[in-house]
Amino acid sequence: MIGKKISDINIGDFAEFEKTITETDVYLFAGVTGDFNPVHINSIEASKSVFKGRVVHGILTSGLISTVLGTILPGVGTIYLSQNLKFLKPVYINDTIKASIKAKVIITEKNIVIFDTVCMNHHGEIVIQGEATVMPPK
Amino acid sequence: MIGKKISDINIGDFAEFEKTITETDVYLFAGVTGDFNPVHINSIEASKSVFKGRVVHGILTSGLISTVLGTILPGVGTIYLSQNLKFLKPVYINDTIKASIKAKVIITEKNIVIFDTVCMNHHGEIVIQGEATVMPPK
Amino acid sequence: MIGKKISDINIGDFAEFEKTITETDVYLFAGVTGDFNPVHINSIEASKSVFKGRVVHGILTSGLISTVLGTILPGVGTIYLSQNLKFLKPVYINDTIKASIKAKVIITEKNIVIFDTVCMNHHGEIVIQGEATVMPPK
Amino acid sequence: MIGKKISDINIGDFAEFEKTITETDVYLFAGVTGDFNPVHINSIEASKSVFKGRVVHGILTSGLISTVLGTILPGVGTIYLSQNLKFLKPVYINDTIKASIKAKVIITEKNIVIFDTVCMNHHGEIVIQGEATVMPPK
Repeated sequence: MIGKKISDINIGDFAEFEKTITETDVYLFAGVTGDFNPVHINSIEASKSVFKGRVVHGILTSGLISTVLGTILPGVGTIYLSQNLKFLKPVYINDTIKASIKAKVIITEKNIVIFDTVCMNHHGEIVIQGEATVMPPK
Repeated sequence: MIGKKISDINIGDFAEFEKTITETDVYLFAGVTGDFNPVHINSIEASKSVFKGRVVHGILTSGLISTVLGTILPGVGTIYLSQNLKFLKPVYINDTIKASIKAKVIITEKNIVIFDTVCMNHHGEIVIQGEATVMPPK
Repeated sequence: MIGKKISDINIGDFAEFEKTITETDVYLFAGVTGDFNPVHINSIEASKSVFKGRVVHGILTSGLISTVLGTILPGVGTIYLSQNLKFLKPVYINDTIKASIKAKVIITEKNIVIFDTVCMNHHGEIVIQGEATVMPPK
Repeated sequence: MIGKKISDINIGDFAEFEKTITETDVYLFAGVTGDFNPVHINSIEASKSVFKGRVVHGILTSGLISTVLGTILPGVGTIYLSQNLKFLKPVYINDTIKASIKAKVIITEKNIVIFDTVCMNHHGEIVIQGEATVMPPK
C-alpha cells in the first residue's frame, strides 16, 4: 500500500477524515504532551474562562489533518514538510470535527504539493484553517 | 494561578519544556488522531522507508510547543491564535525533545505576542522550526 | 531547570495543582496498577455500594500531591522520602481536585522539608490529608 | 463477590500482587497525574540525576498495595482509611515489583484492620515500606 504519486494528483483533489473528539482524547493528549493547561483538564476553571468549558488542545485537532495527508491523500509514503495553522474557534469535548484537504499548488519538478487544510465542527464552523506542504511518495 | 500579562513579557523572554517521546506516546497519539501511517506504527514498513525506522508524528512533537505556551509563558489564560511549523528532521521513538519559545514581537495595543518556536532533539539538531502567535491573559 | 534549594524555602511556602479527574483517568490508573476493585470500574456494583457510584482510587488522587512536590515546590530534583495519607472522603469521577502543600518543618542540616499535604474537592471538602517528607535539590 | 469480613481475618494473614512496571505505565501515570518531573519522563536528564535513569513515580508503585487491599485481602468492599509510605529505594522502568500485605492489628469493635505493607523489587530489595488501615466489608 503506497500513496498517490505527484503524477496522480490534480489541483482540486480532495480528502477528509472525521471524528468525534472525546474527553478521553483530550486527557490522553494532555498526558502525551504535558499540556495540563486548566482550560483543557479542569472543568471548574475552564467554566470560568472565556471559553465557558473545557476545550480541545488546538494541536490535537490539527492532528486530524496529518491523518488525512498520511493515510489518504497523498497517503502512505508522504513526507510532511510544513503546516500553517490558524485557530479560529474553540473546539469543545464531544465536538465532531472534519479535517479536509484540497490540493491547490503542484510543483512537479520539486515533487511538492500544497494543500488547503480546514477543520470544521459539526455546526459547519471552520475551527482551524491553514496550509500543508508535502512531498508525495515517489 | 494565571499566566503573564503582556506588560510582563519582554522581547527575548524564553521558556522551554523537555520530554523523551516514547513508543507509548506515539501509539496513544495514533489512537487519538487516527493517523496510523505505517511510518509511525509499523516497524517493518517503517524500517523499509526513507526514515529507516518508526518516527514520531510531527504534530505530536509540535504539541510540546503548546505545552510551553499554555503552561509556562505566557501560561494559563493564553489564547492560541496561530502556529506555523516546518518539519526539518525526523524524530525517532525515544528521542528527547526540547521545545523552546522566545518572544520576538510584542503588539501591546492588540494584546498579541509572536514567539519563535523551536523543537530540538538531544543531538542538538532542530527538528521543527516555526512561529506562534498568542494573546496573553488580560 | 532545577527546583528550589532548602535555603530558598520558608515555613508557610505554598503550592498547588488542580485537575478534574475523569473516567479516563480512573480506567488508565486501574490498568496501570491492576486495581480493578468494582467500586472503581463497575458502575452497577458501585451504585449498590456505600459510595453510591464509582469512586476514584485514593492513591490516584494522592498522585497530584507528588505532582506539586516534583514539579513546583521544591520542584525538579526533589527526592521523595515519605508520604502519609488519610482518605477522609470519597472522590467521584468528574470531581475537580486541588492538591496543595505547605512547608511546616525545615531541617536544614539534614536537607529535609516536611509539608502538610491536602487534597480538596470543588465543594471545598478535604478528601485527603497528610504529610510529605522530601529532600529538596542541592 | 465480596471480600473477607473482619471475623474471617487473622493476624499474620498475607496477600500479594506482582507486576513488571513498564515505560507505558510510567507515561500513563504521568498523564493521569500531571507529574512530568524529568526524572520520570526525560531519559537524558534522568541519566544525569542521582538515580542515573528514569525512575517510576513512588505513588504509582504504591498503587499496587491498594490493588492487594481492594481486590484480594480483605478484597471487594474494603474501605481504605489511611496509608503511610516510606520510599526507601528507587524503582526503575521494567523492575518487577511485588506488593505484599500482612495483617498486624485487628480492632474488631471498630471494624478496623492494620496491615504492614511492603513493595519489593525483583532483586529482593524493599523499595516501599508502610502501613495501611482499612475497614473490611461488613
